[in-house]
Amino acid sequence: MNFASDNVTGASTAILDAIVRSNAGPLASYGADPLSAAVTERFRALFECPDLAVFPVATGTAANAIALAALVPPFGACLCHEEAHVMTDECGAPEFFMHGAKLVGLPGEGGKIAPAALAAHLAVPARGVHHMPVRALSLSQATEGGLVYRPDEVAALSALAHEHGVAVHMDGARFANALATLGCTPAQATWRAGVDILSFGASKNGALAAEAILVFRPDLAETIAYRRKRGGHLLSKGRLLAAQLDAYLADGHWLANAAQANRMAARLARGLARLPGVRLPWPVEANEVFPILPAALDARLRAAGAVYHPWRTASLPAGESVGEGERLVRLICAFSTSETDVDALLAAAGADGA
Amino acid sequence: MNFASDNVTGASTAILDAIVRSNAGPLASYGADPLSAAVTERFRALFECPDLAVFPVATGTAANAIALAALVPPFGACLCHEEAHVMTDECGAPEFFMHGAKLVGLPGEGGKIAPAALAAHLAVPARGVHHMPVRALSLSQATEGGLVYRPDEVAALSALAHEHGVAVHMDGARFANALATLGCTPAQATWRAGVDILSFGASKNGALAAEAILVFRPDLAETIAYRRKRGGHLLSKGRLLAAQLDAYLADGHWLANAAQANRMAARLARGLARLPGVRLPWPVEANEVFPILPAALDARLRAAGAVYHPWRTASLPAGESVGEGERLVRLICAFSTSETDVDALLAAAGADGA
Amino acid sequence: MNFASDNVTGASTAILDAIVRSNAGPLASYGADPLSAAVTERFRALFECPDLAVFPVATGTAANAIALAALVPPFGACLCHEEAHVMTDECGAPEFFMHGAKLVGLPGEGGKIAPAALAAHLAVPARGVHHMPVRALSLSQATEGGLVYRPDEVAALSALAHEHGVAVHMDGARFANALATLGCTPAQATWRAGVDILSFGASKNGALAAEAILVFRPDLAETIAYRRKRGGHLLSKGRLLAAQLDAYLADGHWLANAAQANRMAARLARGLARLPGVRLPWPVEANEVFPILPAALDARLRAAGAVYHPWRTASLPAGESVGEGERLVRLICAFSTSETDVDALLAAAGADGA
Amino acid sequence: MNFASDNVTGASTAILDAIVRSNAGPLASYGADPLSAAVTERFRALFECPDLAVFPVATGTAANAIALAALVPPFGACLCHEEAHVMTDECGAPEFFMHGAKLVGLPGEGGKIAPAALAAHLAVPARGVHHMPVRALSLSQATEGGLVYRPDEVAALSALAHEHGVAVHMDGARFANALATLGCTPAQATWRAGVDILSFGASKNGALAAEAILVFRPDLAETIAYRRKRGGHLLSKGRLLAAQLDAYLADGHWLANAAQANRMAARLARGLARLPGVRLPWPVEANEVFPILPAALDARLRAAGAVYHPWRTASLPAGESVGEGERLVRLICAFSTSETDVDALLAAAGADGA
Repeated sequence: MNFASDNVTGASTAILDAIVRSNAGPLASYGADPLSAAVTERFRALFECPDLAVFPVATGTAANAIALAALVPPFGACLCHEEAHVMTDECGAPEFFMHGAKLVGLPGEGGKIAPAALAAHLAVPARGVHHMPVRALSLSQATEGGLVYRPDEVAALSALAHEHGVAVHMDGARFANALATLGCTPAQATWRAGVDILSFGASKNGALAAEAILVFRPDLAETIAYRRKRGGHLLSKGRLLAAQLDAYLADGHWLANAAQANRMAARLARGLARLPGVRLPWPVEANEVFPILPAALDARLRAAGAVYHPWRTASLPAGESVGEGERLVRLICAFSTSETDVDALLAAAGADGA
Repeated sequence: MNFASDNVTGASTAILDAIVRSNAGPLASYGADPLSAAVTERFRALFECPDLAVFPVATGTAANAIALAALVPPFGACLCHEEAHVMTDECGAPEFFMHGAKLVGLPGEGGKIAPAALAAHLAVPARGVHHMPVRALSLSQATEGGLVYRPDEVAALSALAHEHGVAVHMDGARFANALATLGCTPAQATWRAGVDILSFGASKNGALAAEAILVFRPDLAETIAYRRKRGGHLLSKGRLLAAQLDAYLADGHWLANAAQANRMAARLARGLARLPGVRLPWPVEANEVFPILPAALDARLRAAGAVYHPWRTASLPAGESVGEGERLVRLICAFSTSETDVDALLAAAGADGA
Repeated sequence: MNFASDNVTGASTAILDAIVRSNAGPLASYGADPLSAAVTERFRALFECPDLAVFPVATGTAANAIALAALVPPFGACLCHEEAHVMTDECGAPEFFMHGAKLVGLPGEGGKIAPAALAAHLAVPARGVHHMPVRALSLSQATEGGLVYRPDEVAALSALAHEHGVAVHMDGARFANALATLGCTPAQATWRAGVDILSFGASKNGALAAEAILVFRPDLAETIAYRRKRGGHLLSKGRLLAAQLDAYLADGHWLANAAQANRMAARLARGLARLPGVRLPWPVEANEVFPILPAALDARLRAAGAVYHPWRTASLPAGESVGEGERLVRLICAFSTSETDVDALLAAAGADGA
Repeated sequence: MNFASDNVTGASTAILDAIVRSNAGPLASYGADPLSAAVTERFRALFECPDLAVFPVATGTAANAIALAALVPPFGACLCHEEAHVMTDECGAPEFFMHGAKLVGLPGEGGKIAPAALAAHLAVPARGVHHMPVRALSLSQATEGGLVYRPDEVAALSALAHEHGVAVHMDGARFANALATLGCTPAQATWRAGVDILSFGASKNGALAAEAILVFRPDLAETIAYRRKRGGHLLSKGRLLAAQLDAYLADGHWLANAAQANRMAARLARGLARLPGVRLPWPVEANEVFPILPAALDARLRAAGAVYHPWRTASLPAGESVGEGERLVRLICAFSTSETDVDALLAAAGADGA
């Protein structure tokens, strides 16, 4: 009953097999191998973007930090949700790679930036050199709260950003989970909606350690190539990342994995919501569930061996709050989560199944 | 006949198997899993150092840059060989992680810092705030030229460094190859000889992507832990690195691999040296061979499909030079290089075998 | 009627004379001159601190940024008021000099950090390498809202900080104005109350361009010396800064200047408060006045030629707000502000004098 | 007899008077005052460049570091003479402001970059992301050895640089001394010869603390404006810098000062050259003299109270060397150096006058 994160599980069989398969024989190092080239072509086809530049890296923190560094000068600012991963969980990696540029947090329920908050921030007239000019907006898809931006929402936020000379980055650590919900094309969810760079995640959804920085603006490719290398993120044996990403994209494996995780999260949410005293402050749109539990239930689950994290309350909707005897927690389902896993937790919670 | 680098080959069978084996079941993320703990214990035992702090990362550039950043303040300088990997091949990763500290190159044959050059540099009296004070010395073991520092040589350089308040880093991307030659213990080659931090390489010698920053001074552990994370180098699925390192250290696998690579380099060197017009400007002490070839021989080898890199001449001994019709090249053997591979190259070169 | 800032006026006569006087003859450069040494001695006597290290610089931004860089590692965080100058008006200079460390804003009325907010922030248990550890607290004295921390308030905040391994910086751009109000000794207001480094301002209170970084912890002196130089803040003709600071400290000139500015602010506040519809959301404790004005009055003042800035409302006390037809503004008095200046503004406002 | 540097003297009378004159009355802060605007216009007229952007700062180190940061990305390299001030005397300020970009030193006699060395360096084909691409060339005018680049020399180096996508910076700490020798227009010596940014020095030639970053490419102005502020180099009382620069440029004061310094250097050189055992390894072209002195003469001069620095020998012409009983030293004349000063030193040296 480990619902702590979608990174506590290993690789999917398909991806592990691909790592093994790719191991034979000599291959050019540093990403100059044919498998890496094939991955680029897969991404270009998938995103309907022939000029797409693709930079595999091993961690999401690296993908985000390098991407933002390409968009924000050291004296600039990057807007994001006040609870975004880049803001709160990467130990300042973005600030490091951006050389001191500032992350500025915007509010919004469930980790989703409120359009009015963005508009208000951008409406403040530029105040000269004393103030760090906003140069990028980072959207998390899905959000830290497991919500999903619709393409028209992304387009509206991006349009507002671009009007102000602000580039758009999408932190897609859970992009697959978002897309599985949206049902649109990758292009519709990203560059057609105004996204300039996407941190495309795979590690949380079937890979062991593989992400890709997808650059929709060719003018940004060179700076990212150099920044990846000087960040120590260009693997010498590029086949390791390429094999994972190749299998991840093949035959819709990535979306199938994500759909499974999302289904399990929905099942978990339905089961929990039926329990007395449990409520979900915002909907479950991807693979994460954020219930407010009675403290006694929380204790019972933990005693039964369930693993998951308490959660912070900044993203709660207006009017919602966590009472004395309550706990806001986060449960995450992965591609490897089964109905059995979910039902075991629900059983421990005293529910009668999904 | 690919002698371009020891990173053109995949993982050894033992390591690949370990990756597969480690894949099952949920494990705590970010290195909090039992396998990562076991790797730390292996390193502590191997290096006879119970306080050793161990930080796995995926690339050697990351290991070096993070290690140096722990030793050198942003206003300081780090001495290294003028052809060291940190100086010439990492796109400024050390300067990035050190926040602008300067690398200062010292001369020496075959990539080995000449003790007199170090002594002369450190003998210059401190010149106040206009000048960046030297705070670290980085030794490459084996060197970029494939030479190996003896423990007493390391100890002499380290003693000189420490006298001047200068910490000692060892870039051990090919530490296994060096140790296989030295035959001493890991402790004798490192901390007993004055090394403060070791970048312990595995990727070039059987792993796919695994290195470890080994910190012999406990006071430096915390800053490295944070710097690894903010560098984007803390993998969420720590099992990937742990599995590789565990198998690498188990049953002397690492030294067996290195010994094989070294034997093949020696065989290659012997065969080449017998050819007319070929000479080795410095000895082969690890797994790299740097012959000066007649241009015609170089052309013949390449025509036959041999892959290797031309090399720069800065490390040549006094009195040695590369003539008009000659080429200095680098050939590297890996754990996976066989006698058949070596003999095929020698045959193409017109040699009659080893 | 220029109340825009205390930096719109030139130097005091005493300080200008000192610049002229110091100009004759050759002097050792880079602060090695006798006048610079004399300034250090003046500061040591004034602060009753024989080990005090003194680093003159030309701007307050430089003083703050260099000081914070000595206290906070690149992966750390620095707490300050959410409207502190370091947070909002220095274009990221602290982040630049700290190499990407993060500023975290705390709330509080009138720019004064609420002790409960600090306690709450520091009470959150450390969360490992994913989160930037707090390493410094920066207090503005006087605050951006013109309030003054009492020595016991500083001591309480500092004690809390030090308990958590957090060093204390004081941004004393208006330290003289604060001290003129407090009436205590400089030592009581700073190191005896737990301050580790003080940015001691003079430019706003009689100098042309002179601040001093006062370092009460000798272990921090060396890193600041180097960081000042590499920041480009070590003037070659050190006499310029030394002459200003020498005259500033001589004969209580600095406190006399500050007292005059504070008196004028008090007079201005008294006069404005008597006007219908005007209120002061927090008290005037130094040389800055923040009235909420009826919009019509604001317009009348500007039409009469008064110069001052609109102000932001984040620091308003709970329950206070600025209505539709109102404006929160900031008026600053300097050492050179006279009763005539104040009364002219009050007259334009329709007041009948102070 | 202080020939240690041209920064051991105070301001010229004209400039000191200007500081005093500019002190009266309120003026907009941060360079928004009319005097600062007038200085910009003076520079534009002087350099025949209506689009020139002008950024006054207080130190030459700041001017150089900010200028280079505008030209070189953090992953790039900047070529300069191996003994350039930016390389050896600024404690890594350029690397700090450039965020870790590398300075690469080129050889050349008397501090002047040998065109062949530049050509050879740029001729090396780009080697991909492992290597930091060259993005700027910094020329010191006059050089650290007191030599002066002719406009056609600057043009040749710049053309070569621009062909390779390399921008050109000129460190003009002693630009006035160079121009006084050249007799050409400022435009001919700079942008017409391909210079993109000039660090225009005044502090060494009559000002107390005033330099200006002159930006001939308007696209670079914005980044410099922000970088100056975040470097802490935007003075609040901009009048201090503006007054100095205004007086410096007025009525040819700057060139008159430089011409005097140069004349005194020439007189000094002539006198020294007549002494037995003294030789000048390269010509005196500005205000610096680098004689090789017999050790006994060096001792006699110091005993007589002469102040000057020993100098390093890397810039010596091929075939020249400093013998056992000899010393290479540097003597600098300033605008304030008189014939009496020079003749006193020559008399102490045993010369019979100029």
